[in-house]
Amino acid sequence: MKVVTFGELLLRLAAPGYSKLFQKDSLDVTFCGAEANVAVSLSIFGAESVFVTKLPDSDVGRAAARSLDYFKVDTSKIVYGAGRMGAYFLEKGVSQRPSKVIYDRAYSAFALARPEEFDWDDILEGADWFHWTGINPALSDEMSEICLEASRKAKEKRIAVSCDLNYRAKLWSPEKARSVMKKLIPYADACFCNEEDAEKVLGIKNESTDSTSGMLDETGLSRVAKTICDAYGCKYVATSIRKSYSASRNGWSATLYDADVGESYFSRKYDIQLADRVGGGDAFSAGLVYAFGTRMNCRDAIEFAAAASCLKQTIEGDFNRTTLEDVEFLLKSGGNGRIQR
Amino acid sequence: MKVVTFGELLLRLAAPGYSKLFQKDSLDVTFCGAEANVAVSLSIFGAESVFVTKLPDSDVGRAAARSLDYFKVDTSKIVYGAGRMGAYFLEKGVSQRPSKVIYDRAYSAFALARPEEFDWDDILEGADWFHWTGINPALSDEMSEICLEASRKAKEKRIAVSCDLNYRAKLWSPEKARSVMKKLIPYADACFCNEEDAEKVLGIKNESTDSTSGMLDETGLSRVAKTICDAYGCKYVATSIRKSYSASRNGWSATLYDADVGESYFSRKYDIQLADRVGGGDAFSAGLVYAFGTRMNCRDAIEFAAAASCLKQTIEGDFNRTTLEDVEFLLKSGGNGRIQR
Amino acid sequence: MKVVTFGELLLRLAAPGYSKLFQKDSLDVTFCGAEANVAVSLSIFGAESVFVTKLPDSDVGRAAARSLDYFKVDTSKIVYGAGRMGAYFLEKGVSQRPSKVIYDRAYSAFALARPEEFDWDDILEGADWFHWTGINPALSDEMSEICLEASRKAKEKRIAVSCDLNYRAKLWSPEKARSVMKKLIPYADACFCNEEDAEKVLGIKNESTDSTSGMLDETGLSRVAKTICDAYGCKYVATSIRKSYSASRNGWSATLYDADVGESYFSRKYDIQLADRVGGGDAFSAGLVYAFGTRMNCRDAIEFAAAASCLKQTIEGDFNRTTLEDVEFLLKSGGNGRIQR
Amino acid sequence: MKVVTFGELLLRLAAPGYSKLFQKDSLDVTFCGAEANVAVSLSIFGAESVFVTKLPDSDVGRAAARSLDYFKVDTSKIVYGAGRMGAYFLEKGVSQRPSKVIYDRAYSAFALARPEEFDWDDILEGADWFHWTGINPALSDEMSEICLEASRKAKEKRIAVSCDLNYRAKLWSPEKARSVMKKLIPYADACFCNEEDAEKVLGIKNESTDSTSGMLDETGLSRVAKTICDAYGCKYVATSIRKSYSASRNGWSATLYDADVGESYFSRKYDIQLADRVGGGDAFSAGLVYAFGTRMNCRDAIEFAAAASCLKQTIEGDFNRTTLEDVEFLLKSGGNGRIQR
Amino acid sequence: MKVVTFGELLLRLAAPGYSKLFQKDSLDVTFCGAEANVAVSLSIFGAESVFVTKLPDSDVGRAAARSLDYFKVDTSKIVYGAGRMGAYFLEKGVSQRPSKVIYDRAYSAFALARPEEFDWDDILEGADWFHWTGINPALSDEMSEICLEASRKAKEKRIAVSCDLNYRAKLWSPEKARSVMKKLIPYADACFCNEEDAEKVLGIKNESTDSTSGMLDETGLSRVAKTICDAYGCKYVATSIRKSYSASRNGWSATLYDADVGESYFSRKYDIQLADRVGGGDAFSAGLVYAFGTRMNCRDAIEFAAAASCLKQTIEGDFNRTTLEDVEFLLKSGGNGRIQR
Amino acid sequence: MKVVTFGELLLRLAAPGYSKLFQKDSLDVTFCGAEANVAVSLSIFGAESVFVTKLPDSDVGRAAARSLDYFKVDTSKIVYGAGRMGAYFLEKGVSQRPSKVIYDRAYSAFALARPEEFDWDDILEGADWFHWTGINPALSDEMSEICLEASRKAKEKRIAVSCDLNYRAKLWSPEKARSVMKKLIPYADACFCNEEDAEKVLGIKNESTDSTSGMLDETGLSRVAKTICDAYGCKYVATSIRKSYSASRNGWSATLYDADVGESYFSRKYDIQLADRVGGGDAFSAGLVYAFGTRMNCRDAIEFAAAASCLKQTIEGDFNRTTLEDVEFLLKSGGNGRIQR
Repeated sequence: MKVVTFGELLLRLAAPGYSKLFQKDSLDVTFCGAEANVAVSLSIFGAESVFVTKLPDSDVGRAAARSLDYFKVDTSKIVYGAGRMGAYFLEKGVSQRPSKVIYDRAYSAFALARPEEFDWDDILEGADWFHWTGINPALSDEMSEICLEASRKAKEKRIAVSCDLNYRAKLWSPEKARSVMKKLIPYADACFCNEEDAEKVLGIKNESTDSTSGMLDETGLSRVAKTICDAYGCKYVATSIRKSYSASRNGWSATLYDADVGESYFSRKYDIQLADRVGGGDAFSAGLVYAFGTRMNCRDAIEFAAAASCLKQTIEGDFNRTTLEDVEFLLKSGGNGRIQR
Repeated sequence: MKVVTFGELLLRLAAPGYSKLFQKDSLDVTFCGAEANVAVSLSIFGAESVFVTKLPDSDVGRAAARSLDYFKVDTSKIVYGAGRMGAYFLEKGVSQRPSKVIYDRAYSAFALARPEEFDWDDILEGADWFHWTGINPALSDEMSEICLEASRKAKEKRIAVSCDLNYRAKLWSPEKARSVMKKLIPYADACFCNEEDAEKVLGIKNESTDSTSGMLDETGLSRVAKTICDAYGCKYVATSIRKSYSASRNGWSATLYDADVGESYFSRKYDIQLADRVGGGDAFSAGLVYAFGTRMNCRDAIEFAAAASCLKQTIEGDFNRTTLEDVEFLLKSGGNGRIQR
Repeated sequence: MKVVTFGELLLRLAAPGYSKLFQKDSLDVTFCGAEANVAVSLSIFGAESVFVTKLPDSDVGRAAARSLDYFKVDTSKIVYGAGRMGAYFLEKGVSQRPSKVIYDRAYSAFALARPEEFDWDDILEGADWFHWTGINPALSDEMSEICLEASRKAKEKRIAVSCDLNYRAKLWSPEKARSVMKKLIPYADACFCNEEDAEKVLGIKNESTDSTSGMLDETGLSRVAKTICDAYGCKYVATSIRKSYSASRNGWSATLYDADVGESYFSRKYDIQLADRVGGGDAFSAGLVYAFGTRMNCRDAIEFAAAASCLKQTIEGDFNRTTLEDVEFLLKSGGNGRIQR
Repeated sequence: MKVVTFGELLLRLAAPGYSKLFQKDSLDVTFCGAEANVAVSLSIFGAESVFVTKLPDSDVGRAAARSLDYFKVDTSKIVYGAGRMGAYFLEKGVSQRPSKVIYDRAYSAFALARPEEFDWDDILEGADWFHWTGINPALSDEMSEICLEASRKAKEKRIAVSCDLNYRAKLWSPEKARSVMKKLIPYADACFCNEEDAEKVLGIKNESTDSTSGMLDETGLSRVAKTICDAYGCKYVATSIRKSYSASRNGWSATLYDADVGESYFSRKYDIQLADRVGGGDAFSAGLVYAFGTRMNCRDAIEFAAAASCLKQTIEGDFNRTTLEDVEFLLKSGGNGRIQR
Repeated sequence: MKVVTFGELLLRLAAPGYSKLFQKDSLDVTFCGAEANVAVSLSIFGAESVFVTKLPDSDVGRAAARSLDYFKVDTSKIVYGAGRMGAYFLEKGVSQRPSKVIYDRAYSAFALARPEEFDWDDILEGADWFHWTGINPALSDEMSEICLEASRKAKEKRIAVSCDLNYRAKLWSPEKARSVMKKLIPYADACFCNEEDAEKVLGIKNESTDSTSGMLDETGLSRVAKTICDAYGCKYVATSIRKSYSASRNGWSATLYDADVGESYFSRKYDIQLADRVGGGDAFSAGLVYAFGTRMNCRDAIEFAAAASCLKQTIEGDFNRTTLEDVEFLLKSGGNGRIQR
Repeated sequence: MKVVTFGELLLRLAAPGYSKLFQKDSLDVTFCGAEANVAVSLSIFGAESVFVTKLPDSDVGRAAARSLDYFKVDTSKIVYGAGRMGAYFLEKGVSQRPSKVIYDRAYSAFALARPEEFDWDDILEGADWFHWTGINPALSDEMSEICLEASRKAKEKRIAVSCDLNYRAKLWSPEKARSVMKKLIPYADACFCNEEDAEKVLGIKNESTDSTSGMLDETGLSRVAKTICDAYGCKYVATSIRKSYSASRNGWSATLYDADVGESYFSRKYDIQLADRVGGGDAFSAGLVYAFGTRMNCRDAIEFAAAASCLKQTIEGDFNRTTLEDVEFLLKSGGNGRIQR
């Protein structure tokens, strides 16, 4: 199974432990990004994972690519050129104090990339799956165009396409998001989102939900998924369900809607003591792509993706360093956390 | 709003993370102190905050002052002279293992300070508020005298005075505390305490409480506050209410008694996953001084102070690095800890 | 009270904090081992504690011994010779992600030790108690022989013997364990175990338990203990009871069966936010040896051992750095974790 | 003595110790910048030091300002607005391996600043000295205009002006630098530079030097300084002289030319084991401004500035945390490095 | 250019900074090994670099392979199986205190590997160069056999072979080394060594040298190289020349003997302030293999290899993270260490 | 050989690496002291080493004692009581920037100790040697009295006594030192000092020396030593000779004067790249005590002590973690620093 993922690779500068930003005199540094997180997780699961992006032609850009090479992601299609390395600052929250992300991604090499820099015929050659997220088109009109071209090529080549809506209020408005995404989603076989994404990006609201308190209604979620499939022709809509009790503890589960049979499948529910919630949604996407690509049925697929993304949130850093064995162990053991020795 | 705070600045030597003291070969080092914590929080909230103390005239003393300059606290009234830097060792607890404080503050420059070293006319010039805590007079008879003189001058100048009882069993006995404090409290417009303070320092016991189990009775607390106001002429008594479930998790709320209307206002209750509970009470005092100084009504004031001090306990170090925006966000969101990005 | 403990000293290489192994570029390094953990805890409690092992004659082996000297354990009976230092890698889990131990203890100086290298007459001279665990005979047939010889000598000298069954599936099979241990247990006055040990090593199953979910039946546990005493002539069987809710939170309690009076004593139950659960069982053993050695009655003994081992799990590292005062404080305060200052 | 310094404040992200960039998983983080370094050093020396810049209105920008507040630099004139925080990555070299700086300062709030954002009448009110460097106009044409306006205003107000040429090849070409700087230098009373600056920015070459090997000719340097004074009307030209033996060891000295008397003064020569050479030139500028401002004679001034900047290079970070006492001690002791206790 | 390198991958556990082993409570952890160091350097230079070894099938072994994937070394030919991960402890010296290496590599998966586990026809397919070192046959007789088979296959396939003698006194005696190596060296086209290696492994002594004081005689070195070529039929002998002034400072240069023309080429001499001297010889080997593989002439080749290995010794860790550009910059600049910005 | 050493144990709080004090947010923490350093070194060399002091009865005091237990120093004679733990802050210098020590040792348990707290008959029982330094009597008059009593008892018991003059200008004046020490030195068989000590404490000046530049005259040193022996009846005077080139590099050698034969023996000279010079003199004392106690001749003794103390200065921390083997290796190899593997 060969998956091509497209998106930005960012420098993550995180305050150490649970300190406030610049409270300590160092920052923990990793490279990551919504789409790169998916590519890494897929590679660890055993897929042939190709990551495509544009990076600055500098020691910083090359170190970013190496952090993917470490996980055997194929970085040979990465384009190098002018522009800076996008970055984000992260402060991890505790209890009532929320985690904070401060973006410093403007003018990045990726945001400034132009359509002619990516040769999609070459990039998608031999791929089974193409994945991207809604962050890409939020960065520039050129990027929207690139996503459109890549999606079209994928369709031509009968490559399955998945898109994580991934709405980011700091990057674009719901209005702009809708006007752009409604042209892109029709190319997606599978659409991944949470309730807020569906509402902000597609204007489809779960009438029975209250996202602040984390209370969600299963029937409402199925209705949202069905509406998306009807409107955009997607075959699957997968929704992650986060109940935010505090910055330290979240509920986590997920649902998958199969448009062909018109049914929703719900995963078991996890009560997570968070190590790092960033990247949870990306781990969920990776879990689904892997599950679909290895022909799991819907029930197994949503359990696999929910378990994989639960484990991500117990691991520091954006990347889900979870193996197939780890996911299977959680599914089998139920997460009692007994020591393995 | 200009606030003058008076007290000792200490060197805090904390075992890293949750290790036992001297289990690791380094100590995390910050400067702090019950009163300095108040001064820093006020400055971050936007008040003009002046901190008065005596420090050793050495690289250590000067570094201590700089840690306040960092937060734009006005350190120009600090007196430098002979004596050592007071210090304390901190070991943070986990679960059933309690946090431990070991004081090394004897013979400090501050404890050895003499009344003539502080020119209160100059120091209090233009101030709206004067704040001190019961730790000061516990250090020496000279310090009691200094607190008395400062309080008198403040009264003369019609500056509001607040005092946090802050009883420390390792510094003085309840008997000594009572004999000293009963002369000082009458100068305080606002008195801040917890139940143990009220009992130990003022001999006023909440008959319906059991401080070990953390069970508290609201009616009893109102009665304690009223008794204080009646006895010492305070206009406000604010009490923080901590329920210690374990060293990792505490309940937290507060109440404010307004003697003029004879009514108590109770804040919402927080269930805190503790990052560092030291300085929680000081953050509460700072919240109240800020609230009073900006003319919040009692209901808003106690909610503001409780929320600010809740957030402090999710932050490492004595200082409450919380901004007005952070407090308002908690009050608005209810503390679900959802990531801000 | 002089206790001789016999076992292996290992190099523990732990991923920092809650990171995955090799996620960070350093490893936290300590020396430890099931039996050494007991020796250190006993020494801290005030017993004269002698630890016997074989170590490589190198800077590594000598540093290992020093880590015991630090706690005033008597290391003068340690044998030095050829072979490597046994080691283990540790990755601490969070929430649904379990902790992982990877052993690298094959071919260690201890595993290769021969019976003639230990002079038990000399080693046990003046001792009141001899303690070892089931890990020793799992390492080699020579080690089984050594344990047998040591136990026999102890019996001759009327020294009390305790054995912690300590089953390790990666070291031997239940069948091998049973065939070896059934010859060794009859020398033990006190047998320490958990339910899994009893079943795997002795084939005695608690019919009313489900070790995965952590559900346990008190009657069943008493029955298991009685069966052990009847079969092997032990006077006491102490069982630790862990309820694994997650890798971050465990229930913990214990029971002690006194064969003479045919009664079981149950400790109070602790709900632990785990700092490091490794060494919890060893701390329990040390608590019991200390309790028996200082003539506590059974009720006090099991409360002491449960409290001591509860505190261990709130401390990083294998060693239980808990003092008598700490245990007594927990027993008195009930573990509300209020700060000590 | 009140000095206003104008320039950019940058986030410095340095590889820990002497590791290569991204070899370790954290970066040491400080805020700094050629001009901010001067402001901090002046404040530590005791001058009233005002720093003017534009910062992003974010947690990052505010933390940057706090790092100057820590040293009591007056940050009240800083402008906040849109744009990012300029940054640079630093890898410290060893022996034959050179230190490397990678800039990430494009599109910063400062680089995007517009002339109308700075009210120089207000900013320069009461100042005795105004300092800026050649990095400013290299950032944008608007910045050149701002420097011109500030210099003009300073002249009007009879405030002394100093400029450090500070040529950066990665920011502009010698041609561009010359065309811009020749309009700005005439406003400078004092010009600070090294030989490379003089050649690249002003096209004035020391005919008898070889900057690679570090061989310099004193007569040549005097000639260069005289040429600058003649061409631009400066009263003083100060030149730092670095002999780069390796990334770990440099020779360091300086010369000051006084145009009025037509004479050059040479400092003693230091052989420095480098802790961090970045900021050495800025410390030299600060030393000179302080020396001129406190009316030292030329001989003392150049010795003071050379000694202060020598000490900077023994301190980690861009800032020269050296006090007056430290400089005087070096001048008196000659730098034998004997322990002070 | 495709190079296959064969050898062991070790876990390096280094005391942090310049501390003594176990003086601090953590160890810096990397993976490395004489041959792996060569493979990584070659990959960074741009060669297609394949590394062959046997690793334990565990999280430790897999992390080891990932550390090579990071540098895009081809790890697909690595064999996984039983046995432990070889390791070594490192304590870096300062001044008169020497660095210390303590091996813990006995019973490793690699040392226990058997000839049938490596399919050399497959491994060497398409390779231009095969490199191994004298450490391999020192580990076991099977490993000697494997080296012999690999060398034979390489010869058959007309692949160039290089061998670094790499004598390790703790692994075998000179006698054993000679008896084994004299059968293996004849397959080597190029032989890399230092004087001690030549003497211990081949019994060829530089009569005019004194290895303790580091005094070496160039004529003597040429004679040694010629003797090796005459005896074993090598075309090239390259010798690194280390003058050990102290643990902090070494002289470094090299010579290359070309048997065809019967001439020796000497590199320039470097005076190195050491960051980490371990891996210097491996970097030298990698430099030569790269130089030969890219058809440099002898004079350029020895300069390239000497410069590359000089730079390695200014970098922490075994790996030479030096790029082609870095080497060229040193050759051009002469190593004055001027900052690059 | 059993040695009793008497002095204060201090908490050393050192800025990490070469940072300025409080530049970083942690301090490296160890326990040490001029006399404790001697006791530890002697224990590592293999002597039976007893350390006597008074410590605060707290977690801090007990951790201090444990740091000696780690090295098997006998701590059973340590007295516990009221008072604080003496401490010192250390900032390590680089190049022209000197190291700085800031004492915080006033009011320590040791400084407040009274003569009746030490039972010298019991403490000195079975000892061969008694060692103390001039820091002790500088702390208080009681401490002078205690030193006098201990010295007298030692003489009575025919125990050899050594005293390191160890003058500290911050603790007492030369006048006070002389008046006290002239009563104590007559009990010393061996007197250890450097030139400054001899001058300040005993008023005996090397006429041909210039301690600032480090130029010393051997004849002058012999004359000083002879004068001491003549005046106070010492049998040996050993003088360490430090040439301070910079804070990073020192010359180091030593001389021993034997009064019986009236001759001086000079060690070889070391040029040291300093890792931590603090404790160098104490290591020298320990080397001499060990050398005398094991009956080395004067020539060997001074070489041994100079080599041991040279090695100390290459090790971080006050303690000389150098073994006999390390010293012998240096004496044999001459300190070329070649790696040991």
